[in-house]
Amino acid sequence: MRKKRILGLDPGLATIGFGAIDTNEPHSKVPLTLLDFGIIQTKAGVEIGQRLKTIHEDLTSVVQEYQPELVAIEKFFFYRMANTILVAQARGVILLVLAENNLPYVEFTPAQIKQSIAGYGNATKEDVQSAVARELALDYIPRPDDAADALAIALTGWMHL
Amino acid sequence: MRKKRILGLDPGLATIGFGAIDTNEPHSKVPLTLLDFGIIQTKAGVEIGQRLKTIHEDLTSVVQEYQPELVAIEKFFFYRMANTILVAQARGVILLVLAENNLPYVEFTPAQIKQSIAGYGNATKEDVQSAVARELALDYIPRPDDAADALAIALTGWMHL
Repeated sequence: MRKKRILGLDPGLATIGFGAIDTNEPHSKVPLTLLDFGIIQTKAGVEIGQRLKTIHEDLTSVVQEYQPELVAIEKFFFYRMANTILVAQARGVILLVLAENNLPYVEFTPAQIKQSIAGYGNATKEDVQSAVARELALDYIPRPDDAADALAIALTGWMHL
Repeated sequence: MRKKRILGLDPGLATIGFGAIDTNEPHSKVPLTLLDFGIIQTKAGVEIGQRLKTIHEDLTSVVQEYQPELVAIEKFFFYRMANTILVAQARGVILLVLAENNLPYVEFTPAQIKQSIAGYGNATKEDVQSAVARELALDYIPRPDDAADALAIALTGWMHL
């Protein structure tokens, strides 16, 4: 497996988690390097178009800063019906940014992510977060949750390379 | 009511209808002028991100060409569940373009559009198309259907000014 930069994205309208990792050369002592993680936020109460514009601008900055070769993103899921349309609209803008920057992406369901990271599809959030810290040799749990989720998604992308 | 340019949009992923009208000065002989109508198309089978990119680019061209002061757009509706996410993703990109171009927009349900244009909320597609042609003093029915729908939405925006 050659060196590759992977950006994990946890999509949403109010909060988008991101986490960037580098997969190292096979002869490297550590298989992975954590590059960065964080969240993009848009304010509730602000007009939807403006929130989508913030997502477009901030995510463009993130992908242009880290220049990933692959993006891993959570597959769309009907969590809560009332929220589905808003999240899907935000996801449309996320997919637009990936296309504008010629970034290939892979999608994983929440169960696939839990299975890949923690070894079982019904792992708890804490199980996944501990596994993320262990895999990246961190002595802390990345915060906030959306950023830790994004790193879990990036790691899932790596495991499926 | 002062002169105003209104762009009607019938959202979708495969086809977005658009129709632009000018509302004339109150002393004008005709209350409205048809400016243009047409469709933006994206190909089925093409990767979703590329289709969203086409929508972003083509709709940006349309709004920059016609410089509307108001956009009227059909409110989101759960027509067919299988298609809902795809259409909502496309709608996110449409709302992004409106925000990027500082365009205010108003939304109407299909029933509101039928009620406004044809006088009753359960009007047929043919009723609405005939009313659009009559209102704009056209001796033809605008084609394709998505463009006629977009003109109906623009007219609804005008009636609610």
